Amino acid sequence: MNIEMIEAARERMLNYARVTPLLSSPFIDELAGRKVFVKAETLQHTGSFKFRGAWSAISAMDQTKRAMGVLAFSSGNHAQGVALAARKHGISATIIMPTDAPKIKIDNTRGMGAEIILYDRVRESREEIGKKIALERGLTLIKPYDEPYVIAGQGTVGLEISEQIEELKVNAKNLLVCCGGGGLTSGIATAMASHNPDIIVRPVEPKGFDDVARSLIAGKIERNTKAAGSICDAIVTPQPGELTFPIMKQYCGSGLVVSDEECLKAMVIAYSRLKIVLEPGGAIALAAAIFKKELIEGDDVIVVASGGNVDSSLFGAAISKYS
Amino acid sequence: MNIEMIEAARERMLNYARVTPLLSSPFIDELAGRKVFVKAETLQHTGSFKFRGAWSAISAMDQTKRAMGVLAFSSGNHAQGVALAARKHGISATIIMPTDAPKIKIDNTRGMGAEIILYDRVRESREEIGKKIALERGLTLIKPYDEPYVIAGQGTVGLEISEQIEELKVNAKNLLVCCGGGGLTSGIATAMASHNPDIIVRPVEPKGFDDVARSLIAGKIERNTKAAGSICDAIVTPQPGELTFPIMKQYCGSGLVVSDEECLKAMVIAYSRLKIVLEPGGAIALAAAIFKKELIEGDDVIVVASGGNVDSSLFGAAISKYS
Repeated sequence: MNIEMIEAARERMLNYARVTPLLSSPFIDELAGRKVFVKAETLQHTGSFKFRGAWSAISAMDQTKRAMGVLAFSSGNHAQGVALAARKHGISATIIMPTDAPKIKIDNTRGMGAEIILYDRVRESREEIGKKIALERGLTLIKPYDEPYVIAGQGTVGLEISEQIEELKVNAKNLLVCCGGGGLTSGIATAMASHNPDIIVRPVEPKGFDDVARSLIAGKIERNTKAAGSICDAIVTPQPGELTFPIMKQYCGSGLVVSDEECLKAMVIAYSRLKIVLEPGGAIALAAAIFKKELIEGDDVIVVASGGNVDSSLFGAAISKYS
Repeated sequence: MNIEMIEAARERMLNYARVTPLLSSPFIDELAGRKVFVKAETLQHTGSFKFRGAWSAISAMDQTKRAMGVLAFSSGNHAQGVALAARKHGISATIIMPTDAPKIKIDNTRGMGAEIILYDRVRESREEIGKKIALERGLTLIKPYDEPYVIAGQGTVGLEISEQIEELKVNAKNLLVCCGGGGLTSGIATAMASHNPDIIVRPVEPKGFDDVARSLIAGKIERNTKAAGSICDAIVTPQPGELTFPIMKQYCGSGLVVSDEECLKAMVIAYSRLKIVLEPGGAIALAAAIFKKELIEGDDVIVVASGGNVDSSLFGAAISKYS
């Protein structure tokens, strides 16, 4: 991964991906004890940054190969990103999803023109199903994070932040990123290392699923002990990626860890003060800025709000509890 | 009002007001039967376009006069816009609000550094209180819409739309605007008449409060019979403005009228598909695009989503009902 790959990804997505705004609110500044600038990536197409990586990977493919279509495994944001990026390229997308995935996510992905293949999480292996279909149909697998073009696509968030903080004269030392497999974090870290080397990128994870924070301390990949159990479903992954971890190890500062309740509160604060809809995992970096302020350095802080595909009953319950 | 005033307002707000994004979703396009482009002015500072008008008026003032401070009457979005624009100019803002204004709006306005003067809606006249205080303290009144610099400020929304639709190759014949007193509508109409004369600006109002639509038909100012009774509180005004109406009469197409329930549904669609928070009055133009599609012309349509300062119990109830 290098800055040239990220800049090339940006060229390819010009006029296709949105340049998302960098938002702020005096009320949030007061809560956080410093100015907080929120990169509202929830406003990206499909409601999360994942569209960037998907677009980057698909747009970089050889044309003949691309015309045969793409494949992804995902029950969430990556599925929607790949589906829409494929449709905008005029090619087919096949998404393999578990039968117990939320109906709304299946419907949304299908609504973007993808073919959905459901599998039984207990009795079947999605990898085997995927391999078989890919072989039969000549499809190319788009991985969610451990794929250079995907990382480069997510890194374009960093290029935009770099320009926006110059315009707004932001004086930050830390940039906090919602972190699952590390595609977004490693992409942004590569971009910032090149354009703003004084700003340290720090991953933020849910309590109990802090594999990246622990891996950064250990200097080698550590796994989570549990596979599920946080409301931040979009960023719960078993371990950092094989490609993303070395990048994070090279560039990132120490990780921050936030509770589910703090994520829900940050979600409600973003709703009320910034007028954006976030999912709990998409609000986790903002939660760290507000609830872990003593662990953050600098006059200002930048946070990425990575996505907003939240279940309405959860969202409704949170605003009624914390508004 | 002319385009030069709007362009000058834009110069004055460069780097102070946000350039808000023009959003879209394939799901909304499907509901509306054409492509819908949503100018997300809810992402403006203070959660509504009102910041633009307030900034425009305050920034245009004579420096000596400005240093003495400004005054506004408002229980809503205009109050917050004036409060923040004043604070960013380093001057005082005095806002006269009714004692029965929602506590959250009083708190928010105070939180932006304004001095709040409460009055009893039944026994006192806010105009008299305002006059007395303005005279005593040398304050300048910033009117919510019937004021050229305010209209020019709101018109900057039109300049941005004009640039954004060129970038996105939008092919629209109608631009729908949430309409109360007509400041936003007349400002945008002036901008479009100059930059995109083929696009007709059309006001959208709540059922029972369609004073602008009726005035446009009559060719003269008509009043509403009721003063309250729509959930679109932000855009319920007794009649079009004395300054705004002649502009709307010159440039606007026919008005559209939408029910409260349609506004609530559009609010939920914006939450779910665009990840933005709207208040009912801020969702009314989107509601028209979706629910009055047979009355709209053109391949694409542009709508302004004007604000998002919504009561959480109303928002929560709507997403639980319509999600």
